[in-house]
Amino acid sequence: MCNLQRLTAGQPSERKEYEGGSIEFWNVNEDQFQCVGVEPARKTIHPNSLSLPSFHPYPRLIFIEQGQGIVGVHFPGCAETYDTGVQQGQGQGPRRMGEGGMFEQKDSHQKVHRFYPGDIIAIPAGAVHWIYNDANQEVVAVSINDLNNPANQLDMQRRPFFLAGGSGSQGSSPFEQGKKAPWQQQQGGGNFNIQNIFSGFDTELLAEAFNLNPQIVRAMQESRNRGLIVRVQQPMQFITPEEQQQFRQPRQQQQRPGGGWLNGLEETICSEKILYNLDSQREADISSRQAGKLNYVNQHKMPILAYLDLSAEKGYLQPNALLSPHWPMNNHVVMYVLNGDARVQVVSNNGQTVLDQQVNRGDIFVVPQFFATTARAGQSGFEWVAFKTSRSPMKSPVAGYTSVFRAMPLDVITNAYQISPSQAQCLKTNRETESILFSPQLMSPRF
Amino acid sequence: MCNLQRLTAGQPSERKEYEGGSIEFWNVNEDQFQCVGVEPARKTIHPNSLSLPSFHPYPRLIFIEQGQGIVGVHFPGCAETYDTGVQQGQGQGPRRMGEGGMFEQKDSHQKVHRFYPGDIIAIPAGAVHWIYNDANQEVVAVSINDLNNPANQLDMQRRPFFLAGGSGSQGSSPFEQGKKAPWQQQQGGGNFNIQNIFSGFDTELLAEAFNLNPQIVRAMQESRNRGLIVRVQQPMQFITPEEQQQFRQPRQQQQRPGGGWLNGLEETICSEKILYNLDSQREADISSRQAGKLNYVNQHKMPILAYLDLSAEKGYLQPNALLSPHWPMNNHVVMYVLNGDARVQVVSNNGQTVLDQQVNRGDIFVVPQFFATTARAGQSGFEWVAFKTSRSPMKSPVAGYTSVFRAMPLDVITNAYQISPSQAQCLKTNRETESILFSPQLMSPRF
Amino acid sequence: MCNLQRLTAGQPSERKEYEGGSIEFWNVNEDQFQCVGVEPARKTIHPNSLSLPSFHPYPRLIFIEQGQGIVGVHFPGCAETYDTGVQQGQGQGPRRMGEGGMFEQKDSHQKVHRFYPGDIIAIPAGAVHWIYNDANQEVVAVSINDLNNPANQLDMQRRPFFLAGGSGSQGSSPFEQGKKAPWQQQQGGGNFNIQNIFSGFDTELLAEAFNLNPQIVRAMQESRNRGLIVRVQQPMQFITPEEQQQFRQPRQQQQRPGGGWLNGLEETICSEKILYNLDSQREADISSRQAGKLNYVNQHKMPILAYLDLSAEKGYLQPNALLSPHWPMNNHVVMYVLNGDARVQVVSNNGQTVLDQQVNRGDIFVVPQFFATTARAGQSGFEWVAFKTSRSPMKSPVAGYTSVFRAMPLDVITNAYQISPSQAQCLKTNRETESILFSPQLMSPRF
Repeated sequence: MCNLQRLTAGQPSERKEYEGGSIEFWNVNEDQFQCVGVEPARKTIHPNSLSLPSFHPYPRLIFIEQGQGIVGVHFPGCAETYDTGVQQGQGQGPRRMGEGGMFEQKDSHQKVHRFYPGDIIAIPAGAVHWIYNDANQEVVAVSINDLNNPANQLDMQRRPFFLAGGSGSQGSSPFEQGKKAPWQQQQGGGNFNIQNIFSGFDTELLAEAFNLNPQIVRAMQESRNRGLIVRVQQPMQFITPEEQQQFRQPRQQQQRPGGGWLNGLEETICSEKILYNLDSQREADISSRQAGKLNYVNQHKMPILAYLDLSAEKGYLQPNALLSPHWPMNNHVVMYVLNGDARVQVVSNNGQTVLDQQVNRGDIFVVPQFFATTARAGQSGFEWVAFKTSRSPMKSPVAGYTSVFRAMPLDVITNAYQISPSQAQCLKTNRETESILFSPQLMSPRF
Repeated sequence: MCNLQRLTAGQPSERKEYEGGSIEFWNVNEDQFQCVGVEPARKTIHPNSLSLPSFHPYPRLIFIEQGQGIVGVHFPGCAETYDTGVQQGQGQGPRRMGEGGMFEQKDSHQKVHRFYPGDIIAIPAGAVHWIYNDANQEVVAVSINDLNNPANQLDMQRRPFFLAGGSGSQGSSPFEQGKKAPWQQQQGGGNFNIQNIFSGFDTELLAEAFNLNPQIVRAMQESRNRGLIVRVQQPMQFITPEEQQQFRQPRQQQQRPGGGWLNGLEETICSEKILYNLDSQREADISSRQAGKLNYVNQHKMPILAYLDLSAEKGYLQPNALLSPHWPMNNHVVMYVLNGDARVQVVSNNGQTVLDQQVNRGDIFVVPQFFATTARAGQSGFEWVAFKTSRSPMKSPVAGYTSVFRAMPLDVITNAYQISPSQAQCLKTNRETESILFSPQLMSPRF
Repeated sequence: MCNLQRLTAGQPSERKEYEGGSIEFWNVNEDQFQCVGVEPARKTIHPNSLSLPSFHPYPRLIFIEQGQGIVGVHFPGCAETYDTGVQQGQGQGPRRMGEGGMFEQKDSHQKVHRFYPGDIIAIPAGAVHWIYNDANQEVVAVSINDLNNPANQLDMQRRPFFLAGGSGSQGSSPFEQGKKAPWQQQQGGGNFNIQNIFSGFDTELLAEAFNLNPQIVRAMQESRNRGLIVRVQQPMQFITPEEQQQFRQPRQQQQRPGGGWLNGLEETICSEKILYNLDSQREADISSRQAGKLNYVNQHKMPILAYLDLSAEKGYLQPNALLSPHWPMNNHVVMYVLNGDARVQVVSNNGQTVLDQQVNRGDIFVVPQFFATTARAGQSGFEWVAFKTSRSPMKSPVAGYTSVFRAMPLDVITNAYQISPSQAQCLKTNRETESILFSPQLMSPRF
């Protein structure tokens, strides 16, 4: 599965259009994605549109390439800490549009989060989440699913679960003729037909379980014709994190019915930070005027990543600067090109060049664990986000301050390569003031 | 492997009869069991019969459906803390029947445990265990083996190891003609032939290892014709937990030969609780007069389950009561019906109904991780035991106090399903006083 | 994969000759190695020769059967704590041979380690290591790679990465015609062609990354014709552990460029002990004048083994002494015969004898998890080293002080085997003063 003769950097191979946006897929049947067990996708959400609630049998990392909005990630048993508190006085809570006009509708719900460009959002396996674009620019979100994650006890196939929406066989996508989307192929079915999980239940049984009029249940089930991203009628109004800050009122932790049900998650996942911004200059892990900068987010900066066993980095190389040749020690890497371009090389265990390509904006390529790689930025620099299958990833660089050659005795190097001690000395030290990101070399080297 | 188009609830497909009882198997070659990697079985042990010592390359959970008796689970290196202490005085220890009549036989052995109906018994991978029915009612024990458990470094096949007994090809079972038991198929052999591990060793070599007359070793090897459950000649007598309580005498922790051999298990597994009763009313996690009750046992109630990464629940639904629609978040579920009946539905990721069936006493069905399910009890209620492939399983319910809809802002719901705010409010709150178990709805709902 | 009908103990099937030594391989395509996911090899390094730097996508344990030398295991980001300190005074540091004669060359590098016969060396996945034989006896090192280790996110194939050397198709090995080495078969290629990872990169790109003259990079790339073990021109000189002891000078922990890069490994892996000597009489875990002795190394004695999830033991049986019948509870075992011979039996789950063979010096055989095994030493005793796929392995013996029969009540044994209480008593106690290693029985047993 990982006997990879050739990797390819490339654009998505498939796009599904919906009322409120679109989703693009890379071809996960390619060996390179099968080897690393990761499935990338790019979602575009139009202003005032909602990506419908869903969950997945594997954890997901989302990177916000553009736009801003609200994301909800819900865990069963966490408290509904966002409360309009409307009963307590006129006009204090936000106003809501009802069926017949303006009226105050009390509501309480779990925390929601405002996201901005550069954010990484962590979604645990099985957690329901949705995204709402409440701004007037498109939201572009790139994500990966870690199908091979231990949280997934099912097999390593794409298997999304939707709580609302779905797509019938009405052929809303221009891509639908001829080619098949990944999930079509995997489900082996001829007609593309995703339904939300409620459509599979008996209407009467579900109505009784919800203690609802069957008509409402039928609306839930029939929402499957609405696609996966919908346009919202009127701007959605709920307590946003900013308002919550403003209107917060102390609220007793409620005693739950069946008190024994509490699973201890209150103290862990319920209050976990699930967003981290990778654009913060202050938090940069490596920053060099000549070479570029690098921001990591791992389990230490965002503890929920320990639970997901995933992490990410955002990097920028100055024009013509280089990424140190290195191999990822404990993770696969999925690279998404944000801006600029670079020449990238990846080499497999027997010294075979498996990737040698100029990569451009919107391309994705993978670097499997232990495969050696390097890159040189083009004339306009090179910006990327990398998703990694480890909570605490490590690079092993072969050049620079932390390189393996600096770690070796000089005589091992001279004898390994039959070079002179002074040449070996240069190999050890010519880049020793830099680490991972290397400035372009304008002068010729000492040797 | 988990592309399940159809699940089926059903009875065992195979039964093996032995002198002292029988074992029934479900067909583990079905996709549903292959997906979840769990193998269920039901053992019946006649009064005064012994299920012979064996071990398995994967952990096992046993639920006692009926009867009582003694179970021994032995770990190498744990102390023999049960001691007849016969040397210390006449008549103080239990009397034993020898070959030639009544005589006192000193014995010491590891702790044994008395079990009762409703008990869950945890058996770690590789631990020798046996069960003795010392009462006058049949013992019925339902168990699952977790073949996919990380403790198993062999492949995911059924592979029991017996220390005594075995079954030759003498065809003691009426089921034996025509059909094949699971282990027959897996071992690809034509004739059903299980031998205990001693029969594979050279008799002389083993005799020397045990420092025994080869005749005794031959008896061990030849016990393979006795089946897997044997009738006991005279009621077995050993120190039971009750007597131990009574006759306990302080005993020095012995220094072992080769002191360095101790592996630290003394403090952990040796003193672990391996039984938990799921019938305790006091320990019920959810209890509702109208809906029913639910008892969980997880790593917090029985710490050895952290080591096994398994857990269980016993539940009861009142007549016509419902189980909240939900999905298991971090585990597969294997359900065994104890009493009554229910209509059960299970829905897969693309909204397909993969199970819609009335399940009855003795049926087993699986709910794979993330698959959505609900159930409504029949006229006489519904009682079950569920085995789960997680030390700390979580349900994500879509209705009730801890539901995902309660967690969502109202506007997300109205827009997802194009329903009115007041309808969405009902969806959030109509069951909000209940959790997991729902009372039957006698009145029609508000909407 | 583990439906093993037959195991075989045997010698390596393949040998590759290099300038400075040779490597022998066992046939990992055999079912027995596929089942346990372990690949053994034996490396011979001539005096004054260097096994070139490489790394592997899985952890490795090395046992030094013969010889002594220096091993380097390098972790990215650990400090270069070995320093010639030559700047500080004439003649204080070691002298080095330069291109044109004697001169002092300053060098600093990471810790290196001197190894001796009986040492176990732990190599984490992805860590670059090399071995130098600086003595005048051949170094013989037996190693196993744990392909199935969780550290390996690639598939379960042999996949070594070399930083220097390689082997072209010049056919240096007499074994090369006709048969194929394991890695040849796995890479499916017709011609045997291992190149170091640098040969796959563009020379100019690499030269710029190293800020070096392309000529040096070309030398690195072309070293691929030197094989994997090279002869060293002049005895290599670097700070050895002994000198370090002597010349140590306090050195400030340097602040690294891009301080955030530090990954916390400084406190863990950087200062970990990676060698443990299994010959220490003082540390013997079991020692019996009549039976033999046994030395374990597990996570408690060498904490880095917790990270690798591997361990080892070295054992010796006196002539005609026995190894208790037992099964490994949480690990596979790969046994390498150091000296003497033994008759070994291994029995699978259905009582089938899968190994019954006399094993001799240099043989390797596997005991899969849970398979029962015993051995009797020949006339000249039996010495072995065993590699185990668990950080904290456990044996479950059926005879001796810690046996499962001692743990069982007497009546369970009498009824399981239909033997008398006094016979059962002998089964429990006839070896009770011994554990794992049993003295030969000169007198006939009591029963």
